[in-house]
Amino acid sequence: MPREVTAFSNATVKRLRSLRDKKARKEEGLFLAEGLRIIAEARDSGRLPEIIMFSAEGARHPLASEIIGATEAAGGDAIETTPDILSKTSGKDNPQMILGAYGQPETILSAIDRSSAPLWFVAQALRDPGNIGTILRTGDAVGAGGLILIDDSADPYSVEAVRASMGAIFTQKVAKAPWSEFVTWLRGGSGQLVGTSLKATNDYLEVEYTRPCFLLIGNEQQGLPAAYEEECDTLVKIPMAGRADSLNAAIAAAVMAFQVRASWRDQ
Amino acid sequence: MPREVTAFSNATVKRLRSLRDKKARKEEGLFLAEGLRIIAEARDSGRLPEIIMFSAEGARHPLASEIIGATEAAGGDAIETTPDILSKTSGKDNPQMILGAYGQPETILSAIDRSSAPLWFVAQALRDPGNIGTILRTGDAVGAGGLILIDDSADPYSVEAVRASMGAIFTQKVAKAPWSEFVTWLRGGSGQLVGTSLKATNDYLEVEYTRPCFLLIGNEQQGLPAAYEEECDTLVKIPMAGRADSLNAAIAAAVMAFQVRASWRDQ
Repeated sequence: MPREVTAFSNATVKRLRSLRDKKARKEEGLFLAEGLRIIAEARDSGRLPEIIMFSAEGARHPLASEIIGATEAAGGDAIETTPDILSKTSGKDNPQMILGAYGQPETILSAIDRSSAPLWFVAQALRDPGNIGTILRTGDAVGAGGLILIDDSADPYSVEAVRASMGAIFTQKVAKAPWSEFVTWLRGGSGQLVGTSLKATNDYLEVEYTRPCFLLIGNEQQGLPAAYEEECDTLVKIPMAGRADSLNAAIAAAVMAFQVRASWRDQ
Repeated sequence: MPREVTAFSNATVKRLRSLRDKKARKEEGLFLAEGLRIIAEARDSGRLPEIIMFSAEGARHPLASEIIGATEAAGGDAIETTPDILSKTSGKDNPQMILGAYGQPETILSAIDRSSAPLWFVAQALRDPGNIGTILRTGDAVGAGGLILIDDSADPYSVEAVRASMGAIFTQKVAKAPWSEFVTWLRGGSGQLVGTSLKATNDYLEVEYTRPCFLLIGNEQQGLPAAYEEECDTLVKIPMAGRADSLNAAIAAAVMAFQVRASWRDQ
C-alpha cells in the first residue's frame, strides 16, 4: 500500500525536490519524469520508477493505479501526497498529478549498438535542455537510435529536457563523450558522419546518405568548430531564404533527419 | 546624449521592467528585444526602438553606438544604466548589454498581403511562446511571409518569443484572428490550406503544394480541432517511425515548410 506524506520536511519529498538540481541528480543517479502520459510511456518501454508520487486524484486513473501497483510490486516506493508538494517538486504552477523518479541509465558510448538503428543524432555542447529533449522526441519520431552528447552539454536528465522529450528519454539511447573519444568510437565501425555548415557546398537535398548515418549538430551560438567539420564525411548546407543565417538547433536536426529518411524511402 | 539612470525607482526603468508582463505590453503597445544581434537585425529591417537601454560596456561596440545615435536622432530615449538593472529588466542572470523597447505593429489580418510570400504559417492556440518564436525564426529561413495566430495564443511579443525568434519578429508579419475571421479572409483570395493530421492518408512527401500555401499547425496538446481539419484543402500526415504519435509543434511546422519548399525547387 502507498504511504501518505503531507510534510515538506519528509526525507523522500526533500530527495525528490533535490532532483531539480544537476548535482543532486548525479549523486542520486535518479531523474524526474512527470505526468501519466510519460510515466505510461516509460512502463511500456519496460521502465518503472524507483519512487512514484501522486495525488489522491492522480491515483484514481486506472492506468496510474496499475503503474503504482507495478512499482510497489517491483520494490519501489509509492507515496500519496498533496497537490502543493507535487507542484513544488516539479516546479510547475500547474502540476502533474503523478511523477516518478527513475534510475539514470549508463551514458557510455560502448553501450550504443550502432547497428540497432539507421540514424543517430550527435550534438556538440548544446546549452538548452529543451533542445536536447526536443531532439530526443524527434529521434523517436524518425526511428533514430539515440543522441550522443559531445563535450560539455546541458543535462539530458534535467526536468526541462525530460519534459520536452515527451517520453523519448525512455526510448532513445543517450550517451556522453568528449569529441576525441567519439571519433575513435565512430571510426571503429561503419557510419557516415554528416555535419551541417554554412560553408558547405553540398545541398542537403542532393546528398546520398548511408546507414548508419550520424547527424552532427553544433552548439546553439557557435555552430560546429572547424576541426569537427573537417572530420565529417559529408558537410551539407540547408539553403536559407531569409535574412537569418541559422536555424534553431533542434529544428536543424529535424529538417536533416526527415530529409535523410525521405531520401531512403525509394530504396 | 544618452541620460544615465542607476535607480530601480526610475520611471522608465519601471516601465521597461513592466514589459515582461503581457498586460503591460498591451497597454504600452511596446515589447522588449535584447542583445545587439537582434537590435541590429531590427535596424536592418528599418526598425528602431522607442527606448534603448545599455551598459557602458554595451555602448562601446561601434554598431551599438551607431544604433543608439540613430535612435536618439529619431526622437527615441537612450539610457545608460547598470548591468544589474539590465539583468532585472530582461529577467536573465546573464543579461545582454543592450536592449530596446519597440512599438508593437498592428496584428490585423487585413495588414497581411498574401501575395508577398509563397508560404505562411497559421498556428492554432499555441501555448508555448518559445514555439511561436521558433516558428518565426524558421519562417525567416524558408522565406515565409509570417505567422497568423488563431484563437487564444501565447503572446508573440513576450520576451521568450522574441528571444526564440532571433530577430525574425522584425522580418516576419504577425497577425491574430479568431478561426472564423481567418477562414473568411483566406477564402476571399487564393491560397491552399494544408493541415497535418494523424488521420490523414496523404503522405506529406507526395502532395502537390501550391502558392500561396498556408501551413496550419495545431495546439501543442490537442492538435487541430476536427472542424479545422475539415476546412483544410489538403490534410497530410508525416509518418512516424517510433512509439510517439506527435512532433513538437515548431518541429512539425519546420518539417512541413522545408518539404513544401523542396517540392517547389524543381518547378
